[in-house]
Amino acid sequence: MMGQSFHQQVVEAVQPLWDHTCTHPFLVAVAEGTLPDAAFATWLVQDYFYVRELVPFMGILIAKAPPEWRPPLAEAVVVFNRELDLFRRQAGALGISLDGQEMGPTCHAYVQFMLATAYARPFAEAFTVHYAAERAYLDAWTWVRDHQRGPSRWQAFIDHWSSDSFRTYVTWLAETLDALANRASSAERNAMEHAFRMTVRYEYLFWEMALTRQMWPDATLK
Amino acid sequence: MMGQSFHQQVVEAVQPLWDHTCTHPFLVAVAEGTLPDAAFATWLVQDYFYVRELVPFMGILIAKAPPEWRPPLAEAVVVFNRELDLFRRQAGALGISLDGQEMGPTCHAYVQFMLATAYARPFAEAFTVHYAAERAYLDAWTWVRDHQRGPSRWQAFIDHWSSDSFRTYVTWLAETLDALANRASSAERNAMEHAFRMTVRYEYLFWEMALTRQMWPDATLK
Amino acid sequence: MMGQSFHQQVVEAVQPLWDHTCTHPFLVAVAEGTLPDAAFATWLVQDYFYVRELVPFMGILIAKAPPEWRPPLAEAVVVFNRELDLFRRQAGALGISLDGQEMGPTCHAYVQFMLATAYARPFAEAFTVHYAAERAYLDAWTWVRDHQRGPSRWQAFIDHWSSDSFRTYVTWLAETLDALANRASSAERNAMEHAFRMTVRYEYLFWEMALTRQMWPDATLK
Amino acid sequence: MMGQSFHQQVVEAVQPLWDHTCTHPFLVAVAEGTLPDAAFATWLVQDYFYVRELVPFMGILIAKAPPEWRPPLAEAVVVFNRELDLFRRQAGALGISLDGQEMGPTCHAYVQFMLATAYARPFAEAFTVHYAAERAYLDAWTWVRDHQRGPSRWQAFIDHWSSDSFRTYVTWLAETLDALANRASSAERNAMEHAFRMTVRYEYLFWEMALTRQMWPDATLK
Repeated sequence: MMGQSFHQQVVEAVQPLWDHTCTHPFLVAVAEGTLPDAAFATWLVQDYFYVRELVPFMGILIAKAPPEWRPPLAEAVVVFNRELDLFRRQAGALGISLDGQEMGPTCHAYVQFMLATAYARPFAEAFTVHYAAERAYLDAWTWVRDHQRGPSRWQAFIDHWSSDSFRTYVTWLAETLDALANRASSAERNAMEHAFRMTVRYEYLFWEMALTRQMWPDATLK
Repeated sequence: MMGQSFHQQVVEAVQPLWDHTCTHPFLVAVAEGTLPDAAFATWLVQDYFYVRELVPFMGILIAKAPPEWRPPLAEAVVVFNRELDLFRRQAGALGISLDGQEMGPTCHAYVQFMLATAYARPFAEAFTVHYAAERAYLDAWTWVRDHQRGPSRWQAFIDHWSSDSFRTYVTWLAETLDALANRASSAERNAMEHAFRMTVRYEYLFWEMALTRQMWPDATLK
Repeated sequence: MMGQSFHQQVVEAVQPLWDHTCTHPFLVAVAEGTLPDAAFATWLVQDYFYVRELVPFMGILIAKAPPEWRPPLAEAVVVFNRELDLFRRQAGALGISLDGQEMGPTCHAYVQFMLATAYARPFAEAFTVHYAAERAYLDAWTWVRDHQRGPSRWQAFIDHWSSDSFRTYVTWLAETLDALANRASSAERNAMEHAFRMTVRYEYLFWEMALTRQMWPDATLK
Repeated sequence: MMGQSFHQQVVEAVQPLWDHTCTHPFLVAVAEGTLPDAAFATWLVQDYFYVRELVPFMGILIAKAPPEWRPPLAEAVVVFNRELDLFRRQAGALGISLDGQEMGPTCHAYVQFMLATAYARPFAEAFTVHYAAERAYLDAWTWVRDHQRGPSRWQAFIDHWSSDSFRTYVTWLAETLDALANRASSAERNAMEHAFRMTVRYEYLFWEMALTRQMWPDATLK
């Protein structure tokens, strides 16, 4: 492992899951333009809720961060608030309603996991969750951009998470994660690695949810 | 709704889901003695993790409770710690290993939901989550006891959650919930009702998980 | 009380304390230019720590805020991060060192109160703490500006908290506080009023601390 | 430092402050039977509030503790709830009213510090705060018992915190603290040492408060 940075180690520790997540059939279908509109709409609505709840999660990250990392995290919250506008605009353009919707099981679970980790666990673990989620989106949507066959009606999202500015943010997250890992005890590094794995599991399940249009049980029970 | 207590209202608001949860096919099979051992083992391991994480959840409840409710909640934590011994003893008696296991998706999600609610939301909502979970277990296992065909190899669990002492605890929870609802604003009562619904959804999914032996995606991805 | 808004009520409920806080001898001496440099330095260093810890407090406020109030709170965090630069620049200009300093008793207590309220209490109470602190600074420094005898060597601070942009922020806080009070139960409004009083007490003690150059007991014990 | 345990190190790092705290003039006057009743009453009322808020603090400790330490911490909460009965009984016997009282500045600050640490900081730091407070009481009241001149009208308190069962609890805390320190990173050990120092400062100020009958500023401002 000599010379390997922590942000690379955590990806390698879950390599097959990582690869399946960042090249998930959902993403393949986006790249090929074959994804049913209903599946995209499910993803868009659920990801809107995810980003909306990412903001409180980031609030707690700011609260627990050492002073020097609070300003960049606060700037990120402002960016995520603007990202919500992107969702609203694109929902409008695509004829998708965000009103009267609620989080489905996987989105709800993922968001609870983020919030519970932020409140209950040390900063380094919560930060790892954020890195895992953002890195997964960078890799997933960059893969889509590199494999897309012509312009997509979902181009705004593809461009957003494969942009240079997003890559710069994820690079800062990676460097900060490495700095946190360097000063952590070995027990804490194990906990960070576990937090990374858990997050990638939820990222994978998030794509699954969009493809299967997952619902709560009471939607069908009588 | 005149004269109806809040703890009855919240059940009625989710009535079909409630009935399906407390007479779930898992419970029918327990009562009839037809449940496969592997399904029971899955439930036992996952419920062990649930109770283990119920203790930290209760810790935060204590932290946020008005002074007069802290002592009974603290006594309940001592009881839940003893409940973990019941799981360990029964696991031993049934030849089920608790070592090297981890929370599956539904248990993990449910636990994160409890913890996130306890940390992030007002006391009344977190208390509602606890009432919903305990009330669901009282009703479910009392139903099993009333419908079981002869003694069960899982009798210790049936007896535990259909006992008078457990019923007394749930009755106290119900009365306390009503007191909380009485002093709450209408917005807060709506939030409590929502917390109840979310908890019952997770209770239902918990039985489903046991029947389907749900796993994380990386258990099968290569 | 007919027609009186909540943000006026909470001030009136502590009127003598409020007036003594916003026209404290420390402020009189600033306005008259008679404050010893050492007292101003004590205040500057301690208020720097206060603002530094205001950022984590705001992070938790963001985390607990309803979605519509998260963006303005996130913008405020960015502003507070810039306020820290003001402190650093002015400290440099005035020859005051921020290095090797620590929070004194009153600043430490005040910050712990803010953080504990944010984590442990409902959003409305934590928001009230923030309103009380910002409103007290607006009134205090506006009073100084209105009574100062010629330009001050501390003009940058006087101007900062008597500016139109700061007044606009405090006005938004007041309106939001009233909206929160409107939807709160009477128990919650009482708790908000108590949170306001506690904050003003700490504001008063903060000025006292600067005048008396308060220290921890181990600074002098042998 | 070879061979010295962490729980000894943290005391030595604040030795003069520690000694002044555990032999404070308040304690000398208790031992000699010369303490004015009013000073004892102030202490009793404020310490009642301290223990009352110790329970929520312990709730969060339970929430953040590794599973193996949750049961002893839960048992301790039950003990602290009983300790509140001791305060109520003794208040009655001594003719001291607990009604209509509120926390004074030092008690309020100390309690906020405990709660903020428990919520915002890793478990090891919050645990250190608890160890510091309990150890200080063991040493302080044992010193009183060893130096008292004949029976005291406050004997119940002296006996309570110099008892074998309390010593056993503090010994367990010390061993657990050492175990936590052993697995901590050096940054975390520094943070634990800082948490210890801060707690002892508040312990010292607590005795001061009782002797000076400290009040909030609005008790006298007009």
